[in-house]
Amino acid sequence: MNDIFSNRMNGLKPSAIREILKNSTDPDIIAFSAGNPSKLCFPAKDIEKYFSESLEQEWAQGLQYGVTEGYIPLRDALKKRTHEVFDAFDADTDELIITTGAQQVFDLATKILCNEGDTIIAEGPSFVGALSAFRSYGVTVEQVPVHADGWHIDEVEAAVKAAKNLRFVYVIPNFQNPTGLTMTAEVRKELLLLAEKYNFYIIEDNAYGDLRYSGQHQPTIKSMDKTGRVLYLGTMSKILAPGLRVGYVSGNAAIVNKMALAKQFNDVHTPMLNQMVCYRFLTESDVAAHISKSCDLYRDKLNLMLKTLDDNCDGAFGYTRPEGGLFVWCTLPDSIATLDFCKATIAKKLAVVPGSTFYVDTDAEYHSVRINFSCPTDEQIVTGIKIMCDTAKEMMR
Amino acid sequence: MNDIFSNRMNGLKPSAIREILKNSTDPDIIAFSAGNPSKLCFPAKDIEKYFSESLEQEWAQGLQYGVTEGYIPLRDALKKRTHEVFDAFDADTDELIITTGAQQVFDLATKILCNEGDTIIAEGPSFVGALSAFRSYGVTVEQVPVHADGWHIDEVEAAVKAAKNLRFVYVIPNFQNPTGLTMTAEVRKELLLLAEKYNFYIIEDNAYGDLRYSGQHQPTIKSMDKTGRVLYLGTMSKILAPGLRVGYVSGNAAIVNKMALAKQFNDVHTPMLNQMVCYRFLTESDVAAHISKSCDLYRDKLNLMLKTLDDNCDGAFGYTRPEGGLFVWCTLPDSIATLDFCKATIAKKLAVVPGSTFYVDTDAEYHSVRINFSCPTDEQIVTGIKIMCDTAKEMMR
Repeated sequence: MNDIFSNRMNGLKPSAIREILKNSTDPDIIAFSAGNPSKLCFPAKDIEKYFSESLEQEWAQGLQYGVTEGYIPLRDALKKRTHEVFDAFDADTDELIITTGAQQVFDLATKILCNEGDTIIAEGPSFVGALSAFRSYGVTVEQVPVHADGWHIDEVEAAVKAAKNLRFVYVIPNFQNPTGLTMTAEVRKELLLLAEKYNFYIIEDNAYGDLRYSGQHQPTIKSMDKTGRVLYLGTMSKILAPGLRVGYVSGNAAIVNKMALAKQFNDVHTPMLNQMVCYRFLTESDVAAHISKSCDLYRDKLNLMLKTLDDNCDGAFGYTRPEGGLFVWCTLPDSIATLDFCKATIAKKLAVVPGSTFYVDTDAEYHSVRINFSCPTDEQIVTGIKIMCDTAKEMMR
Repeated sequence: MNDIFSNRMNGLKPSAIREILKNSTDPDIIAFSAGNPSKLCFPAKDIEKYFSESLEQEWAQGLQYGVTEGYIPLRDALKKRTHEVFDAFDADTDELIITTGAQQVFDLATKILCNEGDTIIAEGPSFVGALSAFRSYGVTVEQVPVHADGWHIDEVEAAVKAAKNLRFVYVIPNFQNPTGLTMTAEVRKELLLLAEKYNFYIIEDNAYGDLRYSGQHQPTIKSMDKTGRVLYLGTMSKILAPGLRVGYVSGNAAIVNKMALAKQFNDVHTPMLNQMVCYRFLTESDVAAHISKSCDLYRDKLNLMLKTLDDNCDGAFGYTRPEGGLFVWCTLPDSIATLDFCKATIAKKLAVVPGSTFYVDTDAEYHSVRINFSCPTDEQIVTGIKIMCDTAKEMMR
């Protein structure tokens, strides 16, 4: 049937993570493979109350078609929070619209900014959902390596110069998926200077920005942007619940309004009640306390994972020490084939995600795996890390 | 800023209906311009109960990321209903996935089936949301006129022969938006024969299929399809509530699975709780009784609108007599400029939608307007129709 499909779908494959997750429905398997927040952080009772209140008080609006840009009280609440917490919304120049998860921002931004054959630059490795959305519009994605000390701006500039019709650079500056690394303020600033010099946009994905467990807050790229080059995206998925599918994008009003036009033809609008629930969460609950409680849980899990690695790894492989987010990135020695490693751990009932998942060129050998600490239990974290360490040591013999 | 946007966004404008609706927030304006189901048909109390039950019993799954294809119990319930009521799902050959409103089906189908420059044929006039979604992928949309007696299949065949890389034909066979007309079983069958002869797909939009107020059920095109050429789309918007944004597509498994892949990169999945609520509505309530009650309301409103037209129009303009759906289509005499007519009615506090909205070539003169009967009150229907009739008579003098 391959000849019936459009060219832009060529080479797009289902997410390897989702394939692995299909296997990990086996309850005996320890899943380090998820990218999910912990269900322990979902305020289910409050959400039930918010749905009921919305349906009691605004049922006609909540169940009817709504405007594409989103439920106005939620937009206003998110404009306020995005300005106050991340300095990433400027009422004088910017607009903010609600999207069906942050994932939709990747689709809409590519649709309105890129022609087929244009180029997008991303970190290597990067979030596969974004890379695939870009490629689904026939765009070329070039990845610039993320080193142990982060992005080297001279390598980024070289890629920018080499790119054909570069439209935007996509980055996850805070606790990047999958490496867990945070971009320094200096690199953020230099990237923005490159954008001005070479005339491209930046998509700043701050999905994990609220999940900092240690270290100092870094300024968002959007906060430094004076020329309307940064599209900033956030989501309710990591601080409330991903199943609601509520994200948002903030930036230059002309661009964001064009995204709203594209969204009108994509899904008309994001479900109304879900937006009302997010609004009530932001205005009726102690959001800072809720996030702080989630961070306490995740910090403990991250520290347990790192301590278990410190105690058992004996240099068998390297790993990052993130200050936030959901992931640790492990780098295997060259002598170990990554897919063999992943197969060996799954045979021991541990699922990890091979590094190739986070690259456009999935056939190359990357010697790395992504592991998640937010979902497994403490016991599973200890058991899983020991399996990883044992497996690596066995394979090095 | 126009030079910063992609070519595919050229010529795409915000829906004229939505612009008109912005004006019609004036509570004194009678809105014949909406495309909404009546809020009187929303079972708000039941929906509140379904949200609460889902959050009591399945909160962890309801709030977490879900699989792209949709909540399995809902998919199974919709497969069953789509098979039993419309003979539009075949378990041996087909797949059915959940989408974020039926609107998303237009996006996904175009994305996976069409390259830029390919052609899609649609009815003229047709649903503007679909036409714009097609065009947002750089596809050429050709419209074949819908006459008072429907589509002329020889005109369709001529357009098919003339089309460059025709990929699919888009039709709304039941109570078409905007004409309200229903395609005869013969034309449905002939269209399917053309699809087989000339090797194209058919997108059968049955959004209004449950809203029949008189006349005989016509077989779906999907029910006649033995070669996997029909993608059939349905929605919960017209029988439950559009604000939930739950639609679905049924068809050849290989094609629908490719749509699921594209959806993964569009919005990951449709909100989980909204799917759970639709499942509970389909399995815990008397769906047939709910639809029958809605049809009773709409039938009375349609009959009132037609009777008021019959009593007041005196041949000033023509109008369709739909057997279902939400719309009546009025055809003005050539001597009346449609936009002038719309401006004249809005000055009298009545909003109608100019016919040009439903064509790709919006600059041509179509001498028609769409009016909606599901949302206005009975009093508004009588007053609004009298305004239309008076205005037409005045403009003909």
